[in-house]
Formats: sequence, C-alpha cells, structure tokens
Amino acid sequence: MIQHTRQLQVATRGKGLYEFTDEVGGWLASLSISTGLLTAFIQHTSASLTIQENADPDVIADLNDFFGRIAPEDNRLYRHTIEGSDDMPAHIRSALTTTQLSIPIVRSRMVLGTWQGLYVFEHRSSAHSRRVVLHVFGE
Amino acid sequence: MIQHTRQLQVATRGKGLYEFTDEVGGWLASLSISTGLLTAFIQHTSASLTIQENADPDVIADLNDFFGRIAPEDNRLYRHTIEGSDDMPAHIRSALTTTQLSIPIVRSRMVLGTWQGLYVFEHRSSAHSRRVVLHVFGE
Amino acid sequence: MIQHTRQLQVATRGKGLYEFTDEVGGWLASLSISTGLLTAFIQHTSASLTIQENADPDVIADLNDFFGRIAPEDNRLYRHTIEGSDDMPAHIRSALTTTQLSIPIVRSRMVLGTWQGLYVFEHRSSAHSRRVVLHVFGE
Repeated sequence: MIQHTRQLQVATRGKGLYEFTDEVGGWLASLSISTGLLTAFIQHTSASLTIQENADPDVIADLNDFFGRIAPEDNRLYRHTIEGSDDMPAHIRSALTTTQLSIPIVRSRMVLGTWQGLYVFEHRSSAHSRRVVLHVFGE
Repeated sequence: MIQHTRQLQVATRGKGLYEFTDEVGGWLASLSISTGLLTAFIQHTSASLTIQENADPDVIADLNDFFGRIAPEDNRLYRHTIEGSDDMPAHIRSALTTTQLSIPIVRSRMVLGTWQGLYVFEHRSSAHSRRVVLHVFGE
Repeated sequence: MIQHTRQLQVATRGKGLYEFTDEVGGWLASLSISTGLLTAFIQHTSASLTIQENADPDVIADLNDFFGRIAPEDNRLYRHTIEGSDDMPAHIRSALTTTQLSIPIVRSRMVLGTWQGLYVFEHRSSAHSRRVVLHVFGE
C-alpha cells in the first residue's frame, strides 16, 4: 500500500459550482494506484464540495438558486453580519453540503457515475482561490 | 493491510429510503478484516446515501415529506425541467444529503450505533436500480 | 501502514455545536503517523458532525437558528412524535448535515484550514453524551 497527498487551488468567481474532476483524474493518472480510495478535503467554511451532474449547466444554476432561497442574504436573520451579507449564508450553505468527499478507485480511476463530476461549491459573492487537499492510498 | 471492492445494486420503487445495511454486513462477514474502514459511494446524482434510524418507519416517511416540502416539484422554480418535474428536486435533495459514507470497522463489524442503518435515499418518482460501490481496507 | 481506533464521548447540553478538535488533535499527537487519513463517525441519528468556523460564536448560534427555522418543532408536520417534539427535527437536521468526516493528515496534523474546527452538532434539547468513533491510518 502506498499513499500520496497534493494540494489543489481552485479559482472561483462568485457563488456557484466549479468543476475540478479533471485535475484529480490527471493526478491519479500520474500515480501507480489501481485500487484504492481518494479523499478530497476543502480548507474553508464558506465554500464546500459536492458531486453533481456535469451535463446540463441549468442544473448548476438551479442548485445555486435553491441555496439562495433557503439561506437568503438578509441580515435581519443573522447575528454574524460583520463579514458581509453573504458570509453567514455561506456558512449555512457549507453546513448543508459537505467539506469532504471520498471516492473508491478501481482500475486506476475514480468510480464516478456517467454524469458525476466533482465541484467546489463557492458560497461567497467575490472571487476566491480555494484550497482542496487530496489524499489517495492504495496499491 | 488488504483491501477489497464490490458493487451492489439497490432496487428502488419511488422516493424514499431503502436500507442496505445487511448487504454490507454480509459482505464484511465474508472477509478477514477485523479493523479498518468501509466506504460506500453511490454512482448517481438523483439518489444519495444516508444513515438514519431504522426502528420506526414513520421517521423514514417524515424525512421524505420534509425533502418534498423543501425542494418541491414545481417547474416554475427551475430551469432544468426537461427530464421531468422530479429531476431537479432530485439533484437538490442529493446535494443536501451525501454521495458517500465511510464507517470504521472494529471487531470485524461496522461501528454503527444501535439504531443506525445505511440507506439509499431515492429522489426520483419511478423505480430504479441504483449502483453503490463499496471499498474496504484494513487488517 | 498502521491504523488505530478510539472512542470519544462528547458531552452536550442542548441544541448547538460542541467542538472536539483538540481531543482529536491530542490523540493524533500521541501516535506516530505523519501522513494518513483521520475519520470521525458519530453513532447517533439525532446528532451529527460538522466542520465550521471556530472564531465567532455568533456563527454557531446563527447556524443553530437556521436549522430551527428549516425543521421546526411543530408536531403537525410529522408522524413520528412519540419521542418528543424535538426528535423528528433532530433526524432531519442529521440528514442535512453528516454522520462522518474524513480529514487528510500531513506532517502529523489534520489539514484543517485556519478557522476550521470539528463539532458535534447536537439536535436534541436535553443533555446527552455522544459517542464519536475515530479511525486513523497512515505511516
């Protein structure tokens, strides 16, 4: 069994989903692991990770709208407002999604379904560079 | 350290939770791993995985109702409507739950709490056969 | 590669977030694992795990309020009411957050971001002792 780690930077430009499936797949292709487990972890509390359909851009837009409805930018709802009206909704959106994904590897590839892609889900309005730590082990 | 992978098919018959704890437990019982980590990953974006109470069927029905209220089948809310009125709500329900679960193994069994069971959470209205990939490693 | 497991007890006093980052960090410091993966799993369906900002207590209070709004203690909404008006909302809150977290370890420490902390998210109104199972492997 061997293991490797790596840090990715994913550039975001406001709320929405940013795919990084290819960056992970490219890294895996450079390693000699045919069976194992890949874990991605995002080092932030106002952006998260999600696996979603990567076929129709409307899915991504609708998802973003949904989270805007459920956790609106309305300062009257929150105590924590000093970092901007998008900050507390960002923490809520992060809690509702996830900080970490683990995906089995079979025949040297992540076992993603046909339409599945890995995304950083940016919850802040401005541009950010998001750090995602990858860990893989196997043989 | 050794590792194994396996693919399960879980048959669903409309929105709701379908337990597959025993399928995983049976597979683990056939392996020689006393301490380790089990990961389950669902290869879909309109069904997800969750750990819930497996004692009272009302919990399952209430959970399903809750997700119906929060992500209603109302096409006026969504752009992505061509795959049916249940499809975009299914993607939202998937984002709110999770695609993957990892559970430690101690004394050859998953360390589930007394009332915890593993479920496929089906978010589409019609019947499907859902693929869940299992990965386990340990010794 | 080596692995270890441990069970933590986290005392809660009503709905809210209870940090246990230091308990995990202290345990890791006592082990000889410089690179690896740490998994925490909570053995309950009415409390969950989350990674959140540990800087401003208002974030924690606002998060708790949000989940109170989205899954209110209103028995008219639920079938499952015999365990108290806070029980079915607790199951919903658990489904919306997560039962398990996996975090890569680099240079003998979890790769948490600057403001990230590990929390038990208690969803019941009364005090509980929550069991969290830790698993770590690496070298």
